[in-house]
Amino acid sequence: MVSDQVTRRVRRIADEMRYHADPFAYGLKTKRSFTIGVLIPDLCNPVFPPVIRAVERTLGEAGYIAILAESDNHPEQARVVLEKMKARRVDGLILATALRADHLIAECVEEGLPVVLVNRTVDGDGVVCVNCDEFEGMRLTVGHVAELGHRTVAHIAGPQFLSTGHDRYRGFLRAMHERELAADSSLIRFCDAFSEEAGRAALEALLDASARFTAVVAANDLLAVGCYDALERRGLACPRDLSVTGFNDMPFVNRFEPPLTTVHFGLDEMGSHAARALLDLLDGNAPNAESIRLAPRLIVRESTAPPPSGGSPG
Amino acid sequence: MVSDQVTRRVRRIADEMRYHADPFAYGLKTKRSFTIGVLIPDLCNPVFPPVIRAVERTLGEAGYIAILAESDNHPEQARVVLEKMKARRVDGLILATALRADHLIAECVEEGLPVVLVNRTVDGDGVVCVNCDEFEGMRLTVGHVAELGHRTVAHIAGPQFLSTGHDRYRGFLRAMHERELAADSSLIRFCDAFSEEAGRAALEALLDASARFTAVVAANDLLAVGCYDALERRGLACPRDLSVTGFNDMPFVNRFEPPLTTVHFGLDEMGSHAARALLDLLDGNAPNAESIRLAPRLIVRESTAPPPSGGSPG
Repeated sequence: MVSDQVTRRVRRIADEMRYHADPFAYGLKTKRSFTIGVLIPDLCNPVFPPVIRAVERTLGEAGYIAILAESDNHPEQARVVLEKMKARRVDGLILATALRADHLIAECVEEGLPVVLVNRTVDGDGVVCVNCDEFEGMRLTVGHVAELGHRTVAHIAGPQFLSTGHDRYRGFLRAMHERELAADSSLIRFCDAFSEEAGRAALEALLDASARFTAVVAANDLLAVGCYDALERRGLACPRDLSVTGFNDMPFVNRFEPPLTTVHFGLDEMGSHAARALLDLLDGNAPNAESIRLAPRLIVRESTAPPPSGGSPG
Repeated sequence: MVSDQVTRRVRRIADEMRYHADPFAYGLKTKRSFTIGVLIPDLCNPVFPPVIRAVERTLGEAGYIAILAESDNHPEQARVVLEKMKARRVDGLILATALRADHLIAECVEEGLPVVLVNRTVDGDGVVCVNCDEFEGMRLTVGHVAELGHRTVAHIAGPQFLSTGHDRYRGFLRAMHERELAADSSLIRFCDAFSEEAGRAALEALLDASARFTAVVAANDLLAVGCYDALERRGLACPRDLSVTGFNDMPFVNRFEPPLTTVHFGLDEMGSHAARALLDLLDGNAPNAESIRLAPRLIVRESTAPPPSGGSPG
């Protein structure tokens, strides 16, 4: 029983002495380390820094700090890093690395370690996910190229073991069907990574197959930018010869040559939602921590135009 | 005294059981947490992700894990985060946040906490730094625009409380002198942040002052890209009306419109050098952990050209 006056005095002196609570000592009472593990596939994919920044700020305001690591989409690398994080007694995890069928996540859930997925979902229920409405994103993209007059549309699909790759692929098929356009399987290429190199190789393979198409919908911006490289190597121009769309609206794509038409969603918002959902879980407020699906919008820039009058480049 | 055979058997069983050393338990013996604090000013500046990736990989191979946080170049924010890191018993720090006169670093050194600076230096000796040779970078840049025929060259300088801003400014003055060009103080603007917005505002101020110049040397790529925005707002073209150079060769500037002429140095190399220097310090090998200065090279792209025949835009 301490008077308000004494409490205020202790706080003032603690501030003056720059006293900070020792999370290890405090943790003896609360059993918390106030440390959160954040695992992402690729720090150099520009979509992640804004997400991580928002995660760190939101966690930081609640007194937490983040341990950050990359998995490179390798389950074994993810396992090694997760073990290191658990050994440091993290209170919870924010994962942008989840595979659609992910044993590591099932293990964490079994162990009672709170987990939130960001920009990823897993097959089945029971894990809180914060992601973009991938189907709506593809509906916007396919709708845009259809309205420009494109009838033969290719899809550079992402890895199918990731929810973003799989849901955008299914979203592409559904949106093509809704627009009464044929989704020709010979015009769909699956990449094993979301990278510029994979996008370039996939579009070159499509062009080599002499497939006829006038637009290509890429499953993310890095794949779309790889398409730019494939076109440049063939002496073809975007959008004159081929329209290209991306997904994510990652930083700086508005400055690219040509500026990329892509699907935008709030990367900051995604990160802060994920952090708040995890804080809810840590406070035992499971009911508030439901999965969150962000609404996308299409940003039309200069990589899309009506189809060339002379036909397709392929 | 354990036989080799027994040792091998224990190791095999440990592998099979996916046993990992508990760093806290191990730390009771070694007094190490195998956790390193990494502090950067701005995760969304694309120069940092490749540096951090290399830091994490090099540390990870040695069994360490990184706690990452941003300072936003605010000393108070840096202090709060550093206290959190120390409370989690970090074994050492890698800082990309150092101010030229930084009390926090002096405190860490006094406390015996190993510190390595990356992409930063501090005034005075005693701290291991890994950075680019800023003076040589400016010599290459100024030499390039001088050889294109520019005689009136402006400088958009970075924050002078950061070594990169200060050394590049001094490097600009020295290189102009070496080329026997006048460094007109009315053609130099100091920014308080390395950001696109600061670069845009600085070049607009120079253009408003009707200063006569045909090239602008920006202290980093974000400032240079801000110059693109200023030119676009005035209906001016780069490099037709004004040549622009950057510094860092951050990812994707080769894809910008126009592709940016800039100073390149190994961002991966910088990160792995910094991590190895810190590991050296942790192993008590101070003599091996001297400051490292990376050699820059100029990448000439399409943002520089001979001066317009009609004179300057200003």
